[in-house]
Amino acid sequence: MATPNPVAEFTETPLPAAAYARFRAALQPQVRIELIALEAALGRYLATNVGAPIDLPEFPRSTVDGYAVRVDDLADATGATPASLSVAGEASMGRVPTARVAPGTAVKIHTGAMLPEGAEAVAMVEWSREASPGRITIDRSVRRGDNTIARGEDVRAGEPLLSAGRQLRPEDIGGLAAIGMVQVPVARRPVVAIISGGDEVVPPHVTPGPAQVRDVNAATLAAMVEAAGGTAWRLGIAPDDLAIFTAMAEEALAGADMVIVSGGSSVGTRDVTRAAVDSFGPPGVIVHGVAVRPGKPTLLAIVRDRPFFGLPGNPVSAIATFRLFVLPTLLRFLGVEEPRHRLPIRARLTAPVPPSGGREDYVQVRLTERDGEALAEPVLGKSNLIFTVVRAHGYIRVPVERSGLPAGEVVPVWQY
Amino acid sequence: MATPNPVAEFTETPLPAAAYARFRAALQPQVRIELIALEAALGRYLATNVGAPIDLPEFPRSTVDGYAVRVDDLADATGATPASLSVAGEASMGRVPTARVAPGTAVKIHTGAMLPEGAEAVAMVEWSREASPGRITIDRSVRRGDNTIARGEDVRAGEPLLSAGRQLRPEDIGGLAAIGMVQVPVARRPVVAIISGGDEVVPPHVTPGPAQVRDVNAATLAAMVEAAGGTAWRLGIAPDDLAIFTAMAEEALAGADMVIVSGGSSVGTRDVTRAAVDSFGPPGVIVHGVAVRPGKPTLLAIVRDRPFFGLPGNPVSAIATFRLFVLPTLLRFLGVEEPRHRLPIRARLTAPVPPSGGREDYVQVRLTERDGEALAEPVLGKSNLIFTVVRAHGYIRVPVERSGLPAGEVVPVWQY
Repeated sequence: MATPNPVAEFTETPLPAAAYARFRAALQPQVRIELIALEAALGRYLATNVGAPIDLPEFPRSTVDGYAVRVDDLADATGATPASLSVAGEASMGRVPTARVAPGTAVKIHTGAMLPEGAEAVAMVEWSREASPGRITIDRSVRRGDNTIARGEDVRAGEPLLSAGRQLRPEDIGGLAAIGMVQVPVARRPVVAIISGGDEVVPPHVTPGPAQVRDVNAATLAAMVEAAGGTAWRLGIAPDDLAIFTAMAEEALAGADMVIVSGGSSVGTRDVTRAAVDSFGPPGVIVHGVAVRPGKPTLLAIVRDRPFFGLPGNPVSAIATFRLFVLPTLLRFLGVEEPRHRLPIRARLTAPVPPSGGREDYVQVRLTERDGEALAEPVLGKSNLIFTVVRAHGYIRVPVERSGLPAGEVVPVWQY
Repeated sequence: MATPNPVAEFTETPLPAAAYARFRAALQPQVRIELIALEAALGRYLATNVGAPIDLPEFPRSTVDGYAVRVDDLADATGATPASLSVAGEASMGRVPTARVAPGTAVKIHTGAMLPEGAEAVAMVEWSREASPGRITIDRSVRRGDNTIARGEDVRAGEPLLSAGRQLRPEDIGGLAAIGMVQVPVARRPVVAIISGGDEVVPPHVTPGPAQVRDVNAATLAAMVEAAGGTAWRLGIAPDDLAIFTAMAEEALAGADMVIVSGGSSVGTRDVTRAAVDSFGPPGVIVHGVAVRPGKPTLLAIVRDRPFFGLPGNPVSAIATFRLFVLPTLLRFLGVEEPRHRLPIRARLTAPVPPSGGREDYVQVRLTERDGEALAEPVLGKSNLIFTVVRAHGYIRVPVERSGLPAGEVVPVWQY
């Protein structure tokens, strides 16, 4: 057992992007596919590209209630000199119209109905008047295609529609329904084992004894896993004992696609995690220590071809490092190589952010709006205060080359 | 049966805010509470206010690995003149320290451990050197409280933490774990019945015949209901037949908390929906017709004390009016009276938005970034093109008093 030197482990501390790049290069996750019902596909990740099997719409349609007409028949129609047309019939919903629009005639039509043969446009019902039974006048001219939608105007057969790795939104579910894709190939949810370490940690349902604390991280990380599209598997709390910890890690590796250990708060858990990872053999530890605040003691490893994360025990650090390292890894198992983010808003800092001492800094902010301008108040708390995050609306990133940020600066804010 | 005049129904068309205000005032939803496990609470809506039952943390802790010390002992400590202290013991994780910090002594301590009696601050291990067995030197002075966290520094017993109506995020789940709230009172998911109307509509798994279209709205609206925290109950497709439709509406009202009918594309379904609502008696229709694009034919009714929505059949209109009217109503059933939104980003329009003819206008946009500036490209499509929404990243709102918007204007964009 190689006991790492708790100082030496930080002698080379890459910035988060470099740390993740090194870890990423060492891992080639397999996306496993399952076919599920469209009704269950919300929030899941599409596992294949989807193209249009058909034109949408499949036939030309009216977009209004009115009369299908020929353009020439209405060429000179005005309020003073309306065109007079005989009504040749009605286009029923869901049926191929039997009536056709011959010169001098119109066919009554409703929104969504198939255009009858000969129709070049649709005149809105509001422009028409019944002159006598079977005869109408229309007081406006139309251009070809007015108030209609052409076959294939939404999508054309063969056109790419959705890409593999797309997380399906409600609108996407509608799009898949439109093309009849009622079974959807999606990435299987990766199983993420979650272990909390630390002799001082008790489960949330237990009343902590003196000097003990409740396990905050397992609940938080499990929820983050579920929110991202994974399945969380809580293995419970490991004491700072190498044999017990290693046995739990074995169990986790046997049943999960990746493992997260969050390190209690103690150096003891960090030592045990490192020693257990080392004992499993190569490739083992890829990165141990990252130049980020919070989250410096983060460990990124690969054990038995599986990602193995040692996150800090402080809840705020665990959340920040989950977002930096675990989330993009989890998304690769879901087929997402380049995660897409909502664009950040820009907000004015109401207070300065102090320097971070050579680390990239992630700072929670509270957002308010004043006179249409967004204001960001930094929530500067120690990283073991879970409620600093609960009370925040988003976060900012302070690059390492900036030494803090002054009040009044306008910064990008990523909203939760 | 009162057949509404398809034009007269729009003679008085309130703007969306006025339409919703009138509908809202006519309805007092009951929030029903259920108690669920914390593990299942992600995304659910808290049904009661939650306060802190305890101080967090419950005891003063170290935030670093190092030595618990007294401030006076290190008053003159520098690299040249380090302070020399005898080590009186070690504070173990999860136990009340037995050693105390008397003048001239230090107690070894790890991140998260309880401060021993007499400790005023913690000196980081990096500042210390073992001088001889049981004796260390420390080369920096400290201020009272340095590298410690006080009892109650995160939250104090009795402090309000989370409000009723809050949708629980992963961080909130962690906060509830921290206070031992392993059973959470949340609002029961409202059941939302979804009916699609129209003789031209077939279920997504059916290959449409000529002039028929697949039902896009049931899938989309069901996913929007689920995404918002409700339970979607799909009743299928109603033909444009008053007796059949009324029987389906009866079934929906008997089993659901609210009903959504989306109107095929045809005036037929709109007529049938209106007639069925009228036949159920007062209060019935509250609003029929809204000055909004898309979504003009929207019907807002209350039937047997339940919200009953007649949404347009065009998918883009159904999505927009769901967001305007159904979503805030659904959220009231979840205890949310004032929905909280992410703040919009500001983006520059790459193309003009044409005037909407006296209606409030909702326009899909695609977002890109260039030189750090967000650009919004309006996706101007007819409202039956579902893929215009699939391809959009957000939407803008054009107030009725603006007659369209010019290219180059910077506008708020609400991102999906």
